[in-house]
Amino acid sequence: MQTDLSTTLGVEHAVFGFTPFPAVAAAITRAGGFGVLGAVRYTAPGELARDLDWMAAHTEGLPYGLDVVMPARKVEGVTEAEVEAMIPDGHRDYVARILAEHDVPPLPEGEASGWRITGWMEEVARSQLDVAFDYPIKLLANALGSPPPDVIARAHDRGIRVAALAGSPRHARHHRDAGIDIVVAQGYEAGGHTGEIATMVLTPEVVAAVDPLPVLAAGGIGTGEQIAAGLALGAQGVWLGSLWLTTEEAELHSRRLTAKLLAAGPGDTVRSRALTGKPARQLRTAWTDAWDAADGPGPLPMPLQGLLVAEANSRIQRHEVEPLLGTPVGQIVGRMNSERSVQAVFDDLTRGFEKAVDRINRIAGRA
Amino acid sequence: MQTDLSTTLGVEHAVFGFTPFPAVAAAITRAGGFGVLGAVRYTAPGELARDLDWMAAHTEGLPYGLDVVMPARKVEGVTEAEVEAMIPDGHRDYVARILAEHDVPPLPEGEASGWRITGWMEEVARSQLDVAFDYPIKLLANALGSPPPDVIARAHDRGIRVAALAGSPRHARHHRDAGIDIVVAQGYEAGGHTGEIATMVLTPEVVAAVDPLPVLAAGGIGTGEQIAAGLALGAQGVWLGSLWLTTEEAELHSRRLTAKLLAAGPGDTVRSRALTGKPARQLRTAWTDAWDAADGPGPLPMPLQGLLVAEANSRIQRHEVEPLLGTPVGQIVGRMNSERSVQAVFDDLTRGFEKAVDRINRIAGRA
Repeated sequence: MQTDLSTTLGVEHAVFGFTPFPAVAAAITRAGGFGVLGAVRYTAPGELARDLDWMAAHTEGLPYGLDVVMPARKVEGVTEAEVEAMIPDGHRDYVARILAEHDVPPLPEGEASGWRITGWMEEVARSQLDVAFDYPIKLLANALGSPPPDVIARAHDRGIRVAALAGSPRHARHHRDAGIDIVVAQGYEAGGHTGEIATMVLTPEVVAAVDPLPVLAAGGIGTGEQIAAGLALGAQGVWLGSLWLTTEEAELHSRRLTAKLLAAGPGDTVRSRALTGKPARQLRTAWTDAWDAADGPGPLPMPLQGLLVAEANSRIQRHEVEPLLGTPVGQIVGRMNSERSVQAVFDDLTRGFEKAVDRINRIAGRA
Repeated sequence: MQTDLSTTLGVEHAVFGFTPFPAVAAAITRAGGFGVLGAVRYTAPGELARDLDWMAAHTEGLPYGLDVVMPARKVEGVTEAEVEAMIPDGHRDYVARILAEHDVPPLPEGEASGWRITGWMEEVARSQLDVAFDYPIKLLANALGSPPPDVIARAHDRGIRVAALAGSPRHARHHRDAGIDIVVAQGYEAGGHTGEIATMVLTPEVVAAVDPLPVLAAGGIGTGEQIAAGLALGAQGVWLGSLWLTTEEAELHSRRLTAKLLAAGPGDTVRSRALTGKPARQLRTAWTDAWDAADGPGPLPMPLQGLLVAEANSRIQRHEVEPLLGTPVGQIVGRMNSERSVQAVFDDLTRGFEKAVDRINRIAGRA
């Protein structure tokens, strides 16, 4: 699978794989795709440097990228404690009630809640970039709007292309005007934060909106047939995130969560504000049901919801409390039915793509 | 575009066009596609016979079909008046308030409210079929589940294939078990009644669920590129409904509604229960906003909502009250930007498909 973009970036296949796990990102790159490591969980700069060292040692000189979460507008002078104080008591009580109903134990003594909103703050993203710019990354992706102009300029100075996710043609035009090089059109069916427009409609809309900038199709893509569909829609590549969660290299740290992913059907996800305060697709669980319930208080806006539920989610994950256990994942979870190596998954993608091309050629009378 | 299904049905292109307008359905068939006439608006059998006579005279012996709305389970012995009596006064007051807020005049004297729930009732659908089975239709599609077994048997006796819409793999398996010949996988982005699963994911899920039955991809398809995508996903054809609403042959009877469709973007639809009580994608209007409002009473279940709002919708349409004026339509409304003949639209579809195939072949290194 070769497009102008994949040729420019020097990858064999126009398949971009987003993952929070270095072993997965490196394996995607080694398989001939473009691995993109999600940085949001690295709140200590030392950890990111360690994993980027590991990536450099395990990618055979092939290209890979980094995905950060950086708001274009800086929130000045607000501490986490000040944001914390904005959370209503009723919401805290509701979290406590859900946890009590499901007998969720506290975290073991000395074990801190992992994720805080700090990972979503510009300072943290900037410290991640200070580290990352010392490494030979070829792409910097931003999941939360366009990065600030100085970050785009720094990336361009180093020959790093900048990508940003868009859920609508309007977002996409905003990215283009900000100087972004690649737009990832993320459809409704994708895992994580999504808009309302499905990939089938969004991809050509975004291609038309930012032409001639290259567009990656994201959302609902987990087979070679779906890759062919995304490319037929005018994308210069595809962006896959969910599919890697059940690979052997993924470090989910919860067998029960992996089992839930393997068992889930395409209707078992929900676009809910339960996790971050913004609509994000994830496994439907007793947790998302509680936040979407008509008689509940409903989720708080971002970033309050993320802060409110951070410790609860750590406890749920730490103790693998099955009914509440979830993760961001797209509707393709219905096709994620076995645990295999990244290489085996990638081989299926390229084989499926070739078969889809054969099929389309037969239909077009060109076989 | 030739698939096993299009060859069996004797059409040049595996493009199925659903429309409530005979002139559009006939033009789709003449252009080399498969026109499917929606029957739900024909409450008097004479009208349907008149329009099927017209279709027979304007399709040059080429194949076409009929789409009915027939529930698999019969609601015995309930009259429309009895259903009326189940509507709460608060909901009637709310309808009156919305109409008053927008100064919607009553219907002119002697003019009856057009659409009633009768069109959704089995008796009416059966009387439509008694008419239709005398005509050389080649396909009978049902928008509301599998038709009753005797209807499927009557169709098969006459060599008519039976299709049914499905929003999930579970629906699709149910159709297969009921003896349906063709499953239309209708994705989230489609106009009218839809489920939550997007076309990109739903199509291959349904193909796998009912293999070897042929599947049509529906939802989000309005260009040749999108047709190529739907076929790459394993469909044996595509099912397009929204696209024809802005053709020259369509009889929308409201210039303001046509103008709204031409101006709308992909984010200007909403999946709302405002129209029938079941989630149906339509233009977002002050009407859908009123029914989705947190401080409103919310829609009633089907069939109550349809009955509740029938006269109001007739008044809104009759007087073209712009803020409230809407129609079922899919997210591809964003690409419906000019009024052209069905033939011109169809030519664009086939040209766009060929270009998409060229593109995929270049990407696959086969050009």
